[in-house]
Amino acid sequence: MSTVPLQENPESDPLVRQVFDDIRATRGSDFINLLWKYLAFDPPLLKQTWEDVKSVMAEPSALDPKTKEMIYVAVSIANSCRYCVHSHTAAARAKGMDDEEYADLLRVISTASRTNALLNGLQIPVDPEFNREND
Amino acid sequence: MSTVPLQENPESDPLVRQVFDDIRATRGSDFINLLWKYLAFDPPLLKQTWEDVKSVMAEPSALDPKTKEMIYVAVSIANSCRYCVHSHTAAARAKGMDDEEYADLLRVISTASRTNALLNGLQIPVDPEFNREND
Amino acid sequence: MSTVPLQENPESDPLVRQVFDDIRATRGSDFINLLWKYLAFDPPLLKQTWEDVKSVMAEPSALDPKTKEMIYVAVSIANSCRYCVHSHTAAARAKGMDDEEYADLLRVISTASRTNALLNGLQIPVDPEFNREND
Amino acid sequence: MSTVPLQENPESDPLVRQVFDDIRATRGSDFINLLWKYLAFDPPLLKQTWEDVKSVMAEPSALDPKTKEMIYVAVSIANSCRYCVHSHTAAARAKGMDDEEYADLLRVISTASRTNALLNGLQIPVDPEFNREND
Amino acid sequence: MSTVPLQENPESDPLVRQVFDDIRATRGSDFINLLWKYLAFDPPLLKQTWEDVKSVMAEPSALDPKTKEMIYVAVSIANSCRYCVHSHTAAARAKGMDDEEYADLLRVISTASRTNALLNGLQIPVDPEFNREND
Amino acid sequence: MSTVPLQENPESDPLVRQVFDDIRATRGSDFINLLWKYLAFDPPLLKQTWEDVKSVMAEPSALDPKTKEMIYVAVSIANSCRYCVHSHTAAARAKGMDDEEYADLLRVISTASRTNALLNGLQIPVDPEFNREND
Repeated sequence: MSTVPLQENPESDPLVRQVFDDIRATRGSDFINLLWKYLAFDPPLLKQTWEDVKSVMAEPSALDPKTKEMIYVAVSIANSCRYCVHSHTAAARAKGMDDEEYADLLRVISTASRTNALLNGLQIPVDPEFNREND
Repeated sequence: MSTVPLQENPESDPLVRQVFDDIRATRGSDFINLLWKYLAFDPPLLKQTWEDVKSVMAEPSALDPKTKEMIYVAVSIANSCRYCVHSHTAAARAKGMDDEEYADLLRVISTASRTNALLNGLQIPVDPEFNREND
Repeated sequence: MSTVPLQENPESDPLVRQVFDDIRATRGSDFINLLWKYLAFDPPLLKQTWEDVKSVMAEPSALDPKTKEMIYVAVSIANSCRYCVHSHTAAARAKGMDDEEYADLLRVISTASRTNALLNGLQIPVDPEFNREND
Repeated sequence: MSTVPLQENPESDPLVRQVFDDIRATRGSDFINLLWKYLAFDPPLLKQTWEDVKSVMAEPSALDPKTKEMIYVAVSIANSCRYCVHSHTAAARAKGMDDEEYADLLRVISTASRTNALLNGLQIPVDPEFNREND
Repeated sequence: MSTVPLQENPESDPLVRQVFDDIRATRGSDFINLLWKYLAFDPPLLKQTWEDVKSVMAEPSALDPKTKEMIYVAVSIANSCRYCVHSHTAAARAKGMDDEEYADLLRVISTASRTNALLNGLQIPVDPEFNREND
Repeated sequence: MSTVPLQENPESDPLVRQVFDDIRATRGSDFINLLWKYLAFDPPLLKQTWEDVKSVMAEPSALDPKTKEMIYVAVSIANSCRYCVHSHTAAARAKGMDDEEYADLLRVISTASRTNALLNGLQIPVDPEFNREND
């Protein structure tokens, strides 16, 4: 159940076609996941979203692709985004995350969530040693 | 401003002393950050929290220490935990995260937060290709 | 799947009947959405919730009805409330939100979520220019 | 630093005066905490908020006052509301929560946050045994 | 739909078997809910999670079992964890929460969420009376 | 206290200079708020963030500027982002939001937060009438 209809033939729109072609070329695969098909209800939003995700996730940067996908999963879990958890867990696996690493990822995320709650409860001051403001 | 008082001489309690000694030994440093000093208001909670964090973050596991700290930062940002953001950003730096990696970390976290919101809005179905239930 | 059973004949309770009649009269429609039918498990909670929502959303106030529903959608997305996202997106459409406005709404919400994450990460001080405390 | 100015002499407004008198009478104390003083920038919002909080927290109901305040603290921690954490932790203490109970409260909240993250990551189906929809 | 496959015969792993036996013994029931069956994909994570939940929820402590389950529900609602809401609402009922208490629980949680949002918007300073730092 | 140092003379970097000039030109003001000054620690992140915010918030679109800022405030409150709440509340005022509208905004946000919690607790099914999937 979604808040926008699934487009019947989205690639009849030239802007959608161009974005879908770029998704296929970037990934080297014909699989277009549902996010992009639904986002085609508004081609400029589709284009902006894809270009942003592509520039952050698909282009070479300081962090390696698998690490970036695991961080994406961590944020998606904390924000309780069902679709994002599924798609980025699959992406992390596709980029090499094995079962042992996945279990370790869940261990770190769940431990962090625990101490986050503890600290949000205690409201203690931050150690001045952590400050970088006037470095 | 905190919800529990800062203990004056926490190590007079033998359980607190034991935990603090283990923190110092594990980290190879005399610095005890404020979290542990405040948590000393309830020694069993201090001990349980430290042992959990230590077993996940300080013991060898599938993911390397720097990656684990960056995931911790990601969760802490999503949960809006001020103390945790500061302490684990400092820990990630201490384990080797440089400025370029930090900027990349923020880029992934903020892009993930954007698409999380988009997907939580669209409420689209998850692609069956992502399902692992009956693998 | 829900945590309370769907009431078989909720309007047999006079308080439920009175609230349902007010919902129908306020909206000029016979459609009672499932929220109210399930909430009938506790008539006082049903009444309190409806009166609160009605006073804020259905009565004339500084903001127009369509804007209020879009703000409601924004909050529901950020809180990851599936039912609320669906019901208030439908309500915003019923009050005139078109596809272009919906795409713009999603654009603002997702951009805000991105910078929220960035700022929760940076933990920078607030500009004194924004303070209204001593205006 | 706040988004509305602190009112200089809020009780010169008769509606504010009436609400403040009710706060004092309900609590049997002259202390008015800052929330109400700032909310006086909009007397109807002040009145609606106070009446809602009063009816839920100050009137006799199925749960006892101390338990209700501890639940309030749990929600405030999860929503990362600094002011709310402080004011309701103080209220829970005023209604009898001792240090041991506070440590236990933090233990439950932090453990729940851990498993919440784990389950939001695993996205497993809910056991049909938990369903109450057709009871 | 889940991110890990449901294990076919999880108790063939001796560590899983040991944990499942302890779950059955602790609860005095043969029912093992799906969380534990899925977590069996990584026996050490299963063991760590169960021992943590057991020590906090099943062992005698300052708060009574029903209160602890209601606090767990409150946190799970705020974190939007569907599975956790279902399983811990069922657990709270199993430990004695009746319909009236459940309605009251929802009333406190929803009122707390309202004022949390209000205070996160107003960003007002915390009353110095609530500080415990130097008690 | 921040996780990156405040840059001493950020405009000595030509990319930073270019972005700051664009901020000044877009807003018709010399005031550069602290977000941009701190983000200058990584000029590409600064540029990407500014261009994204500018394209969504400063360019003409389906929704008017004041409405967009109020939606931004709603999201920032729900995500508990202190800096964002302050800066976008100020921006909404600068674009015409008066006190009465602000109080109404807070009313909608806080009521939505209440029913979000209620629905996340009840976990009731979404009315099929709200589905747009096969429109």
